[in-house]
Amino acid sequence: MAPELQQEEDYTTGPEAAHKTRVTVVGSGNWGSVAAKLIASNTLKLSSFHDEVRMWVFEETLPSGEKLTDAINRNNENVKYLPGIKLGKNVVADPDLENAVNGANMLVFVTPHQFMEGICRRLVGKVKADVEAISLIKEMEVKIEGPCMISTLISQQLGINCCVLMGANIANEIAVEKFSEATVGYRENKEIAQKWVQLFSTSYFMVTPIQDVEGVELCGTLKNVVAIAAGFVDGLEMGNNTKAAIMRIGLKEMQAFSKMLFSSVKDTTFLESCGVADLITTCLGGRNRKVAEAFARSGGKRSFDELEAEMLQGQKLQGVSTAKEVYEVLSHCGWLDFFPLFATVHEICIGTLPPSAIVEHSERTPKI
Amino acid sequence: MAPELQQEEDYTTGPEAAHKTRVTVVGSGNWGSVAAKLIASNTLKLSSFHDEVRMWVFEETLPSGEKLTDAINRNNENVKYLPGIKLGKNVVADPDLENAVNGANMLVFVTPHQFMEGICRRLVGKVKADVEAISLIKEMEVKIEGPCMISTLISQQLGINCCVLMGANIANEIAVEKFSEATVGYRENKEIAQKWVQLFSTSYFMVTPIQDVEGVELCGTLKNVVAIAAGFVDGLEMGNNTKAAIMRIGLKEMQAFSKMLFSSVKDTTFLESCGVADLITTCLGGRNRKVAEAFARSGGKRSFDELEAEMLQGQKLQGVSTAKEVYEVLSHCGWLDFFPLFATVHEICIGTLPPSAIVEHSERTPKI
Repeated sequence: MAPELQQEEDYTTGPEAAHKTRVTVVGSGNWGSVAAKLIASNTLKLSSFHDEVRMWVFEETLPSGEKLTDAINRNNENVKYLPGIKLGKNVVADPDLENAVNGANMLVFVTPHQFMEGICRRLVGKVKADVEAISLIKEMEVKIEGPCMISTLISQQLGINCCVLMGANIANEIAVEKFSEATVGYRENKEIAQKWVQLFSTSYFMVTPIQDVEGVELCGTLKNVVAIAAGFVDGLEMGNNTKAAIMRIGLKEMQAFSKMLFSSVKDTTFLESCGVADLITTCLGGRNRKVAEAFARSGGKRSFDELEAEMLQGQKLQGVSTAKEVYEVLSHCGWLDFFPLFATVHEICIGTLPPSAIVEHSERTPKI
Repeated sequence: MAPELQQEEDYTTGPEAAHKTRVTVVGSGNWGSVAAKLIASNTLKLSSFHDEVRMWVFEETLPSGEKLTDAINRNNENVKYLPGIKLGKNVVADPDLENAVNGANMLVFVTPHQFMEGICRRLVGKVKADVEAISLIKEMEVKIEGPCMISTLISQQLGINCCVLMGANIANEIAVEKFSEATVGYRENKEIAQKWVQLFSTSYFMVTPIQDVEGVELCGTLKNVVAIAAGFVDGLEMGNNTKAAIMRIGLKEMQAFSKMLFSSVKDTTFLESCGVADLITTCLGGRNRKVAEAFARSGGKRSFDELEAEMLQGQKLQGVSTAKEVYEVLSHCGWLDFFPLFATVHEICIGTLPPSAIVEHSERTPKI
């Protein structure tokens, strides 16, 4: 049931318009479209927000010849990336990035992570000085000089505050309103975090604020390394005990690695939706787990590149490259011995160790 | 490959015999037999232990007419409860409880929990004053006056120290030497905990000591309530997001409930094998999950009693009775609002709420 626009109120020009918060979603893929749907259901209900939610769409021409933005605005549905789901009539797709963010008070970033540098460059000087941002982008590069947190990129490039929202969030399940949770990570301003919570929460989407941007954001990236390990266990048919053990060890290594990178990271973050719940979802389903399972079934004889090409229609696995980057950091810092699972995942991915080594790391190195 | 007894050394009468530690396993079901196998492989290797591991067996007559103890000792295999697995020739089955524990320095308790009161009564005055005990028994009654910790029962009845060992331990998977982990919970004496770790650890069974008997032991009981919730989610086909969310909320309630009962309980315990890993295993497989799934599929129309009778061949579900007991404690203490998941599980089990309420508890009550 799509919410109806309240036509009585002219929110673009009315006397209260100037005080109302405007929200723009930057990105319109599968998860971006669901985020727009969640937000649009709330802006209609909350009087402090403008009803309209603008959504920047990277323009494409559909096979029918119609522009994607036109199709979204005509059907009230992202026919390409979230077909069958009404977004709310107050979602307005806009192919012009600058126009989409113009006048926005709150920006939701939800694009593939590799596009964010370019997007930030284009937005410099184009956003309000006091605009608040949130990143829903789960992947980042982990470089030796430090992880490239997307929230930090946004903050630094645009000179604005940036929260993050992560969790066990399979977009298609939330789109059909199945119960789920998420975590908002914030730096200092709890009021802003509460405003994000208010903007995203619905009866089927429970959002909890946590003062730990780095911990929350790192969970979204590091879990992919553990999902590769879980896939190996599945491929070797080792059973639920082993899989649970590997997931647990992985969660502990995620926690220890995050704390070594940022002393501010909190232990409790890993029991939030962004931590243990997202890890469970990712290790039960998900493409990292799936391709790693196929890799292990082949005895490591088929490469990840080959399997990705065959199984993912052009998508790349984040877990394999994150494992490589994490390995380089561990190696550079002399921490390899403290992270036997992370280290072993990478060594299996590059063929130095066989897939069965995933359960032998404990003999090789001391535990954390 | 079954380890061979070192015939050169007469461990029962030799000069060093008096100084060597003797181990008896009290119980010989599926998990008890696997525990005996793990221990027996280590007593052969560790010079401080007697090779022989005695195993008390509740005597039965097999369909062939042979006594179970005779069959175990003849075949070196528990043909009834762990067929196909060699226990080690140094495991000796004994149908006489008093004889089995006579002279033992370390006692491993691994029987159904309802038998422990009777067993303890029979053992009063029959065990060494300085004997060390460990309980592998995962279930307990949770009464209003406090949970009936099996470790406390053993300690108080016999006047001895008692540790616990819990974890993601599906016996049949460990029996075939698939990688797994466990947690030893101890009270004060870390050296004793280390001795238990040494006695149980193998290359495929990693054991970690944690100074938190109550936390470790409560995990083994409370996870069954969460498994019922996970089964409801499966039965309603709500998907991995929802299941991960319910498991996470359940883990948090396990932690909060344990801490309310015992202020000594540590947060970190719930990231050990006894916590998150056992929860994952139990929510992926396990009979609590399975019967709860069938209950939800029937829309709550078939009772748990009926489904148990049909699906479990006479076994009873621990999760349903634990949920009832926990509910009584929460109700008595005025804590129902702080534990919406635990409370909802019980109310669904007794038919007050429909299975779909498992994802609606968040609206009913404040979060912990």
